[in-house]
Amino acid sequence: MIEGVLETALYADDLDKAEAFYGGVLGLEIIRRGGNRHIFYRCGSGVLLIFNPDETEKPIENDPFPVPPHGARGPGHACFVVSRDDVDAFAAKLSASGIAIEQQVTWRSGTRSIYFRDPAGNSLEIAPRNLWNP
Amino acid sequence: MIEGVLETALYADDLDKAEAFYGGVLGLEIIRRGGNRHIFYRCGSGVLLIFNPDETEKPIENDPFPVPPHGARGPGHACFVVSRDDVDAFAAKLSASGIAIEQQVTWRSGTRSIYFRDPAGNSLEIAPRNLWNP
Repeated sequence: MIEGVLETALYADDLDKAEAFYGGVLGLEIIRRGGNRHIFYRCGSGVLLIFNPDETEKPIENDPFPVPPHGARGPGHACFVVSRDDVDAFAAKLSASGIAIEQQVTWRSGTRSIYFRDPAGNSLEIAPRNLWNP
Repeated sequence: MIEGVLETALYADDLDKAEAFYGGVLGLEIIRRGGNRHIFYRCGSGVLLIFNPDETEKPIENDPFPVPPHGARGPGHACFVVSRDDVDAFAAKLSASGIAIEQQVTWRSGTRSIYFRDPAGNSLEIAPRNLWNP
């Protein structure tokens, strides 16, 4: 019955730095920021949620939308889709913004992934959509 | 340039339990399991990666595909798409499998989310795709 992933979550302790990175450098469209708790971004047909675990691990009480507590620590991972033609341009844009390219991996199919870090240390990747459908 | 999320990652210390849950209960199609390090599942147009952080935090050396280390601890979050008509049936399927429904939230749009946990304690959610496009 599951048709896909709707929300992908990463954790960051400094949401100001996260907003400068995900909105400013990566260029994602913000949906909304909730104070020091979260920033939500539209990302294609899905949504990227950046959470401050110090806040999301607190149980929500007396609220009409009592989502369960959660909150991870340490570097997570997510991979974003870019078109095959945009991989090099995207890497150049990162470098121009002072974001180091940590690694480039060429898979057996010839598809390339580029790895970098967000300010919280999460390991991010960009790759063409055919990475998993070579 | 980012067109969407390609890979969503969650962390689990017991991959046997994770496989019984994500493959057996949720019914996701496995792409491959890598020993005690990871299990990858197809999930619509994206991929769900379940990682054992004890393994992924180790630097990869002498490997043709040297992906950077990562690894989070504590309960993460992801939300899966089901059709609006499948929400109740999905919840019933979880209950029949002994998975507790931790919370149900009805948003202002009338769209409902159902929350439950994977064996590692990650907070999972199912919701119709229009949750973010009411």
